[in-house]
Amino acid sequence: MKINGKPYRTIWLAPDGWSVEVIDQTRLPHEFSVIPLRSMDDAARAILSMQVRGAPLIGATAAYGLAMAIREDASDEAIDRAVAHLAKQRPTAINLRWALDEMRRAVQNQPREERVAAAYERAALICDDDVETCRLIGEHGRKLIMDIARKKAGAPVEVLTHCNAGWLACVDWGTATSPIYQAHDAGVPLHVWVDETRPRNQGAALTAYELGSHGVPHTIVVDNAGGHLMQHGRVDLCIVGTDRVAANGDVANKIGTYLKALAAKDNNVPFYVALPHSTIDWTLSEGMSIPIEERSADEVLKMPGRLPDGSVVTVEIAAPGSPAGNPAFDVTPARLITGFITERGVCPATREGLLSLYPERAPD
Amino acid sequence: MKINGKPYRTIWLAPDGWSVEVIDQTRLPHEFSVIPLRSMDDAARAILSMQVRGAPLIGATAAYGLAMAIREDASDEAIDRAVAHLAKQRPTAINLRWALDEMRRAVQNQPREERVAAAYERAALICDDDVETCRLIGEHGRKLIMDIARKKAGAPVEVLTHCNAGWLACVDWGTATSPIYQAHDAGVPLHVWVDETRPRNQGAALTAYELGSHGVPHTIVVDNAGGHLMQHGRVDLCIVGTDRVAANGDVANKIGTYLKALAAKDNNVPFYVALPHSTIDWTLSEGMSIPIEERSADEVLKMPGRLPDGSVVTVEIAAPGSPAGNPAFDVTPARLITGFITERGVCPATREGLLSLYPERAPD
Repeated sequence: MKINGKPYRTIWLAPDGWSVEVIDQTRLPHEFSVIPLRSMDDAARAILSMQVRGAPLIGATAAYGLAMAIREDASDEAIDRAVAHLAKQRPTAINLRWALDEMRRAVQNQPREERVAAAYERAALICDDDVETCRLIGEHGRKLIMDIARKKAGAPVEVLTHCNAGWLACVDWGTATSPIYQAHDAGVPLHVWVDETRPRNQGAALTAYELGSHGVPHTIVVDNAGGHLMQHGRVDLCIVGTDRVAANGDVANKIGTYLKALAAKDNNVPFYVALPHSTIDWTLSEGMSIPIEERSADEVLKMPGRLPDGSVVTVEIAAPGSPAGNPAFDVTPARLITGFITERGVCPATREGLLSLYPERAPD
Repeated sequence: MKINGKPYRTIWLAPDGWSVEVIDQTRLPHEFSVIPLRSMDDAARAILSMQVRGAPLIGATAAYGLAMAIREDASDEAIDRAVAHLAKQRPTAINLRWALDEMRRAVQNQPREERVAAAYERAALICDDDVETCRLIGEHGRKLIMDIARKKAGAPVEVLTHCNAGWLACVDWGTATSPIYQAHDAGVPLHVWVDETRPRNQGAALTAYELGSHGVPHTIVVDNAGGHLMQHGRVDLCIVGTDRVAANGDVANKIGTYLKALAAKDNNVPFYVALPHSTIDWTLSEGMSIPIEERSADEVLKMPGRLPDGSVVTVEIAAPGSPAGNPAFDVTPARLITGFITERGVCPATREGLLSLYPERAPD
């Protein structure tokens, strides 16, 4: 997508042909800053600190992180160590493990001298595939928005989204935002309610930034507001992303997603989850066993922001001395989800629904 | 309650005998500051700017504001103007209108020369009554906590609350917090999950400050986290306050309350609303017609906080140029509420429940 008219992905190979560059998402929306990742450790730190975040982008960054590790030491032992190190940076998004598995498959049984090239090739393919996957999610999801638009006869379709499942969370297009961008680009009038998404404000900081850069009408609301908006008929459709989908359709996503799904159910608002195949964890029979990352209390107690002179500072916002808890994700039961939007189409949030799109995953 | 060991109410008559002093709640938790209100206009501004907030305290402040107006001009016309001006500062909390009605009743049909004394007397009584009412709410609500404590056999009772329905929202004790303080003071082990309560952070700023000052164990969580905590059995009981209760038991309270009530229902967690009689709007048959205040977008887009040197600044936290919506309250349907805790006892959140405690309100 474009920033100030210039097209970007969130991660790309640097001109040197082996290091990568990413947009530092901890600096947005206050500052657009590109940082180099020159080693596996750089990639791991970027994932942990959330300079890169979003399930698909975490996977893509880990892929290049592993490629850089292989460039330094292509032995099986080194690859095992690098995979283990990268995998432990964030526990919830399954795309991280998926990308590392894909990378390992690409180099295993290869002679050492061919592993570097194979790794970079696979990492590049993971990124390109993600772009195409997200584009297809947008094609399928766009139809849902267009169906509502027809019923609304010119009034804007009101979409609510939580966190950032935008192009900044992926390599391009986004998952939840891809249908929005494609419907908008097709001339469908729409407006997006952007959940702020405390504690890290990915909605107000990233989704609003994305949508604003692309010219999509939107309004930031605090996470508390969505239920009220739905009660008053001001939301036609919710679309969110996810960090891991269990085989039964339960969905782990940014903390607070469950509350919006409850409100959507209570108000008969369709609640869709957009995802690429790489976010499905076929090994999990249900979602409550998905590991939920607990992050630093500082993310709750402190807040970065811009002073009037444009400088960025971090302020303490809570009562001094009070502790904070910070679970980063919650699990939305499949029963609250209207459907999944994937690169292969739309399906119910059930095991049968998922298998209808991915029949190759059916048990023999 | 005490701050640094010194007992305070939130509002009191100044030594001059006619102006009042209040704690400036917009400066908390960063700074404890007492400000004088020397006129009806001062009181109106304090209510609008939320230097004083919380349904009962808004009522008490309006009462003294009207007393100060009557001190300047005790004519019926002046009283009408003052009542109209004060009443329009905040639309949702019914206590504001209730207190003004009480004040007007206290002075009407009185000779002008006696109106000032009658007004100050009634304002003082509103404050004293609020303290006693909140103390009684605590007595009744404490039993709910103790019942759970018995079942938990020594493990702390986990209470979740939203916004600040603490002593800072009232004259003393609080509504939702009064049972917590009284159970804590009685030696019941408990722990409070404090919802941050964006956009104005009354939870992290005021409730955490209160609980910390009183030594009650607590943990701040973002508003998004409560559903996750309930899914994992980490909340035994929710208690919140309210700004207006309709006669059928629907409850208007700080935005986001509805989402927590949905999560409580979905997880079989008891959800109680604590309130004084003055918060019941017997004229409203249901809650969706309660006027919901829309406040400034700046409350969403900007955030006050402390710099490391202790100075307090306001930073912009969202994507530049993005608009924000800011509905300040939502309505929780009675069907989601386990019961009400009032100064007269605990009752179901139904018309019959309310009338069982307030039989004098039954239609003839």
